[in-house]
Amino acid sequence: MYQDRTEQDTHLMQEALSLAARALGRTSPNPPVGCVIYHHGRVVGRGFHPKAGEPHAEVFALKDAGDLARGSTVYVTLEPCSHHGRTPPCADALIEAGVRRVVVAALDPNPLVSGKGVEKLRNAGIQVAVGVLQEQATVQQAGFRTRIVQGRPRVTYKFAQTLDGKMAPLQREQVWLTGLSSRRFVHELRNQTDAIAVGSGTVLMDHPQLTTRLEGRDDTRDPTPVVFDRSGRVPVTAKVLREGAVVVTESQQVYPEGIRVIRSADLREVLQELGTLGINSLLLEGGPTLASAFLKAHLIDDLLVFITPKIMGTGLSSIWTELSGLQEVHGMHAENLEEDVLLRAFLNPIPGVEG
Amino acid sequence: MYQDRTEQDTHLMQEALSLAARALGRTSPNPPVGCVIYHHGRVVGRGFHPKAGEPHAEVFALKDAGDLARGSTVYVTLEPCSHHGRTPPCADALIEAGVRRVVVAALDPNPLVSGKGVEKLRNAGIQVAVGVLQEQATVQQAGFRTRIVQGRPRVTYKFAQTLDGKMAPLQREQVWLTGLSSRRFVHELRNQTDAIAVGSGTVLMDHPQLTTRLEGRDDTRDPTPVVFDRSGRVPVTAKVLREGAVVVTESQQVYPEGIRVIRSADLREVLQELGTLGINSLLLEGGPTLASAFLKAHLIDDLLVFITPKIMGTGLSSIWTELSGLQEVHGMHAENLEEDVLLRAFLNPIPGVEG
Repeated sequence: MYQDRTEQDTHLMQEALSLAARALGRTSPNPPVGCVIYHHGRVVGRGFHPKAGEPHAEVFALKDAGDLARGSTVYVTLEPCSHHGRTPPCADALIEAGVRRVVVAALDPNPLVSGKGVEKLRNAGIQVAVGVLQEQATVQQAGFRTRIVQGRPRVTYKFAQTLDGKMAPLQREQVWLTGLSSRRFVHELRNQTDAIAVGSGTVLMDHPQLTTRLEGRDDTRDPTPVVFDRSGRVPVTAKVLREGAVVVTESQQVYPEGIRVIRSADLREVLQELGTLGINSLLLEGGPTLASAFLKAHLIDDLLVFITPKIMGTGLSSIWTELSGLQEVHGMHAENLEEDVLLRAFLNPIPGVEG
Repeated sequence: MYQDRTEQDTHLMQEALSLAARALGRTSPNPPVGCVIYHHGRVVGRGFHPKAGEPHAEVFALKDAGDLARGSTVYVTLEPCSHHGRTPPCADALIEAGVRRVVVAALDPNPLVSGKGVEKLRNAGIQVAVGVLQEQATVQQAGFRTRIVQGRPRVTYKFAQTLDGKMAPLQREQVWLTGLSSRRFVHELRNQTDAIAVGSGTVLMDHPQLTTRLEGRDDTRDPTPVVFDRSGRVPVTAKVLREGAVVVTESQQVYPEGIRVIRSADLREVLQELGTLGINSLLLEGGPTLASAFLKAHLIDDLLVFITPKIMGTGLSSIWTELSGLQEVHGMHAENLEEDVLLRAFLNPIPGVEG
C-alpha cells in the first residue's frame, strides 16, 4: 500500500517502464511498452511488448491478471491503441476487462491517433490520468516517436574524448581511451539500439564487427550495421557486412544477397530509407567525418560523451566542422561511471510530446 | 549526541573543516585550519586561523570553550604544532587546558615536524586519533602542503570548453561559454586563491582585472595577479598591474614601485619564487599557450574543466602541446552545476599525506 496516490502512480509507472526496458532494441518498428495492473493493494498483472507481431503490453498484463483486472488500475507507458493494427485495439481490451482507472505515461506521438485511445476509455466511463513519468517514458520511446513523426530513426552520436577534448592522436592510430565500465555500457547500448552507423574509414582501419558482447549474457542481440561507403571502398568480404547489414553508397559495387543497399548521398534521404526499414534508433560510432556531416545537417539528436581521465595534448577532435554558430544543447547531464564520466546531451527535442 | 564515535568524529571534523574554509585564501603562507571542541554532548568551542600573524585555530577554540575545555575532545583539521613559531606551540596549549582526546584530520606535511605534535600530546597522556576526513582535509590544505614540501604553490588550471572540446573560435575572438552559476563559482575560486596567472596574450586581448566580483558580498579579497610577459609586451599601465601584482619577464622593462618582478624564463624557478613570496595556490586562467607550457613541465596539479552545453564545430583547444604520451589523471569527478558540468581532476598527488 502507498501513502498517497502520487506515490502509488509514480512507483507503479516506474515498474511499467522497467518492464518495457526489457525489450529495448527488440520491438522495432514498434515502441517498447510496459504495463502493470494493480488491485486490492498489490500488483496483479505485468506485461510488456516483446517484439513486433506479438501482442501489446496491455494484453499480456490483462492475461496475467485474469479476473482480478475487473475494477483495477492499469499503468501503461504509452497510450493504449484505439485502432486495428496487427492486433485488436488495446483500449477495447481494457474496456472489456472492466478496469476502473488507466494511468498513461505518454500519449501516442502519431498526430492522427494521439489522444483517441484515452478518449475511447473515457467514453466507456474509465478514469484516465495522463503524464505520470512522461519525460522518462518519452526518452525511452524516443526512437519510435522520432520515426513516427519525422519518418527517420533517432540518431545518437557516441564518442569518447580525453579531458582536453581529443578523441585520437593526430596520426589517427587507435588508442583505447575508456575504462571497462564504459565499454560495458557501450555494449549495453548496442544491445538496445536498432542500428549502428560507421564510415568506410573506420571500417577499413579498425575492422569492427559491431556486435554486442556482454559477458555472461545469452539474451543479447546484434544491431544492424549501416556502413556509409560512398565510393565503395569497403570490400564486400568485410566482417561488418553480415546478413541484414545496410550499405549506403553511390558506387556501383555489387553486394551479396542479404545486404541491403541505399544508393544516395543525401543524409536525410538515407535516414528516411532507414525509417522505412523499421529502424527506430541509430547509433553513430564512426569517426569525426561522418559525425560532422550528421551534425551539420542537424541530424544528431542525442550525444553520449565519455570523458576519460587522461590528457592527450594534441589530437583529433570528436567533431570538426564549420557551424554557422554555437549550437546550443537542450539539456545536459553528467554521470560518474567507475573510471570515466558520461555526459548525456539532447540536441533535438523528442517529437510528439503533448500534455 | 551521536549514535557512535565514528559518527561523532566525522560530523565534528566536518564542522572543523567548514570553519577552516571561512579563511580560505586569507591564511597564506599558513594553511587554513579549523577547530571544534566537544564536551558533555555539545560543541563548547569553535575556532579557525583567520590569517598569518594571528593565533592558530586551537587557540581561538580553547578561548571560546574556557573551563569547559578540561576533559573535552578536540577536533582539528591539521596536526597541532609542536614548535615555537610566531605563536607558542598549540600542542602545549592543549595539554595545559587538560583536554582528554584530540582528533586530527591530517598530519603536518613538513617532514621535519610531521608527527611531533601528536607525539607530544600522547606523551602527555592525551588520546590522539589521526586520519578522520583526511582526504577532505588534505584537499583543503593542498596549496600549503605543496609549498611546504615542494617549495612552490599548487597550480590549478581552470578552463571552459564546449561538449566537443573547444575553448574559443579559431579566430580567437572572445565568446562567453559558461552559465551564470559557473561564473559565480569562478569568482568564489578567485576569492579563495592566493594568485592568478595569465599570459600576455590574454592581457592584451581581454584586458582582465582579475578581481573577485561576488554580488552582495563585502568580505571578498582579490588574488595577486601574476602576469607572464616574457618580452615585456604588456604596458605598465595595464589595469591588471595593480599594487602587489607580479610580472614574470625576461625584458628590461621598468615597472612602478609595488609591482614585483621575477626575471626568469624557467617555470620551475618562477614557481619557487612565488613560493618564497608565500603564495600557496596559483590559478591558471590564461589561454592554451601558458597552460600548455605548465602541463609540459608537469606543473599543473589540478584541473577544473567547465563543460558547457554547446557545440562549436571548429575551434581552439584548451590544451595544445605535444606530450610524450597520454597523461593519466589520478582521480576525476563530475558535478552537475545549474547550466554547466564541472569536472575536477587531480594530476599530481597532494604531498605529505601520511597515515
